[in-house]
Amino acid sequence: MNNTAIIGVGMTPVGEHWDKSLRQLAYEAAEKALNDAGNPEIDAIYIANAYAGTFNKQTHLGSLIADYLGFSGIEAYTIEAADASGGAALRTAHMAVASGAVKTALVIGVEKATDIVGGSRTQARTVSLDADYETPYGATLTSLAALLMRRYMYEYDVELSAFEGFSVNAHSNGKLNTHAMYRNTLREGAFAKAPMVSDPVSLFDGAPDGDGAAALVITSADTAPDRVAQPIRITASSVATDKFMLQERKDLLWFSAVNKSVDTALTQAKLSRNEIDLFEVHDAFTILSALSLEAAGYAERGSGWQLAENGTIFKDGTLPISTSGGLKSRGNPAGASGIYQAVESVLQLRNLAGDNQINDANIAMIQSVGGLASTVVTHILQN
Amino acid sequence: MNNTAIIGVGMTPVGEHWDKSLRQLAYEAAEKALNDAGNPEIDAIYIANAYAGTFNKQTHLGSLIADYLGFSGIEAYTIEAADASGGAALRTAHMAVASGAVKTALVIGVEKATDIVGGSRTQARTVSLDADYETPYGATLTSLAALLMRRYMYEYDVELSAFEGFSVNAHSNGKLNTHAMYRNTLREGAFAKAPMVSDPVSLFDGAPDGDGAAALVITSADTAPDRVAQPIRITASSVATDKFMLQERKDLLWFSAVNKSVDTALTQAKLSRNEIDLFEVHDAFTILSALSLEAAGYAERGSGWQLAENGTIFKDGTLPISTSGGLKSRGNPAGASGIYQAVESVLQLRNLAGDNQINDANIAMIQSVGGLASTVVTHILQN
Repeated sequence: MNNTAIIGVGMTPVGEHWDKSLRQLAYEAAEKALNDAGNPEIDAIYIANAYAGTFNKQTHLGSLIADYLGFSGIEAYTIEAADASGGAALRTAHMAVASGAVKTALVIGVEKATDIVGGSRTQARTVSLDADYETPYGATLTSLAALLMRRYMYEYDVELSAFEGFSVNAHSNGKLNTHAMYRNTLREGAFAKAPMVSDPVSLFDGAPDGDGAAALVITSADTAPDRVAQPIRITASSVATDKFMLQERKDLLWFSAVNKSVDTALTQAKLSRNEIDLFEVHDAFTILSALSLEAAGYAERGSGWQLAENGTIFKDGTLPISTSGGLKSRGNPAGASGIYQAVESVLQLRNLAGDNQINDANIAMIQSVGGLASTVVTHILQN
Repeated sequence: MNNTAIIGVGMTPVGEHWDKSLRQLAYEAAEKALNDAGNPEIDAIYIANAYAGTFNKQTHLGSLIADYLGFSGIEAYTIEAADASGGAALRTAHMAVASGAVKTALVIGVEKATDIVGGSRTQARTVSLDADYETPYGATLTSLAALLMRRYMYEYDVELSAFEGFSVNAHSNGKLNTHAMYRNTLREGAFAKAPMVSDPVSLFDGAPDGDGAAALVITSADTAPDRVAQPIRITASSVATDKFMLQERKDLLWFSAVNKSVDTALTQAKLSRNEIDLFEVHDAFTILSALSLEAAGYAERGSGWQLAENGTIFKDGTLPISTSGGLKSRGNPAGASGIYQAVESVLQLRNLAGDNQINDANIAMIQSVGGLASTVVTHILQN
């Protein structure tokens, strides 16, 4: 298998972009990534998007966006795996380039989540759950995350405060990220007093949906050094799924798809988990961070939250997560979030992450999660 | 680039499957394809689907269907390019296997189009047009096809009857296909008297939306002969896009994406267009067949319809199309149609197409089209 590398990155700030359409957001991110890559010839565009069909009544984004970018004619289509769409599109581009079918690919993650055509966002978002066996009973992503969190608290005998560190870390980093949606730090006591969204998930446990686009240019690792000064190699790429519905899982508190995709990725990259310098988890809910750290092998079961409490996941810790604010503070543009993770990690590996730069960033693991970890995509990036 | 081959095919009949859910249709097709391939180990599932988000309020089909098939754990996600989703998913699987990242992939095209949750199908289907600049003005796929057909009739001075042969051929073949949705032959004079849907597109110009699923098992061409008696090689795979909206095309009657993807595919397979034994066009409307044959280089501009009138495209002609009834008679399960084309062509190349078998079928070209040919995916299959 040929190796691939990321040679250009770009992104828009995440937020409520009432003045920009879906295609305009995609354009802005793509233009930056293409410039960053020295404007190479592009053979294919892979779009990561999860909800435009329901949020914006717009599918068929491949051709639509290729045309708007002035690339009418080339290969283009969409990859969807709910909120793991970003990771899945990155994998598709990686395989396309590795196969030799495509020399250089542009991957664009884009979502316009705050401008819903008809209905509510919460309702529109439930399309990624089971329409036959979950949504008819009122389940939402948040209420299912709440079930997990409640079970975790009961099973491991921890209080709500156990999850505070994840939110504090995300906002502490997001405050320094000019592209973040909510650049506020959490004041002492704010987490404990946060309004409940779906008990025990409070306002500071869940990530806000936002509009945004992020883009990557990917080419073969062999030619990448001739094109840019700091190509970032993709040394592992894996996708794993789990039982779709929580009710069918034997063990509610074990994210088997996280475990499997991380193990596969580490094997591919020939790395041990302790060699990872930063780990972008999909922190859509604090409980997801805790469970992901455990299933990824970084904490014993029931103790993932301690990595937040003891500072391991902070920027100066041994395993920084959410270094740009994560989904929680930077904002969660659903289908684009996996591409944001890649863009932000590339900046870290290039030593260009500004106020959020961590020391000695050479190896990053990024993880894109759909549903309640029913789809997990893991990539490892190295400089 | 490694070569790939199709080692298993399966499909459900196309129709109104009120008693089967989306996942059950997928299961039925997948089970047949897996049995046909000798039940090999599967590493990844790629789902082709265009409208489940709007028709059925269900996305995230990769994990959902993998789980339902009992493959929970493996790689799975969805590929979308409107009605070209089938072709795009086949391409993704082809590249995944060619890259070496995936040994054996299952591709499932599935659509449940006759059981819409809220709103009308016509409205739900417009998500694949431009939500900002086309649908607000009332455009539908059918009304845009009508614009093309009217322009064709005006420009080339032909009557409605010029398109009759496409419909007659499709129904003549579909009548013999037990998996077809409408197994009626067109009686003399029926085409001329057909009720108008969107003038000049009549009931017998447009393909009916149907429920259905079709599946393929794809592995490397090197190992395929060890697995099955008649592997079918994928010798070309290409995607091209066009200006998304008709109003931005300089020449309404030239499908540049058809032209480009066919030229690329023929070059890849090192074939001339006359070596193609059968050509599965995306005959969603008779005008699409005429324009596709012209842009693919099989007829002069303005004379594509003559291939229907003179019998070239009939089963005993030199370039059979729609040999199983095409979208017109077999039915159009949107995102799955491209996979049906592949399944039906594989059966032809294996000499197992029953009453619709053509003579000396060695090379098939299949073409999956999204929108008004704004996305076109072309594959060449060889035995």
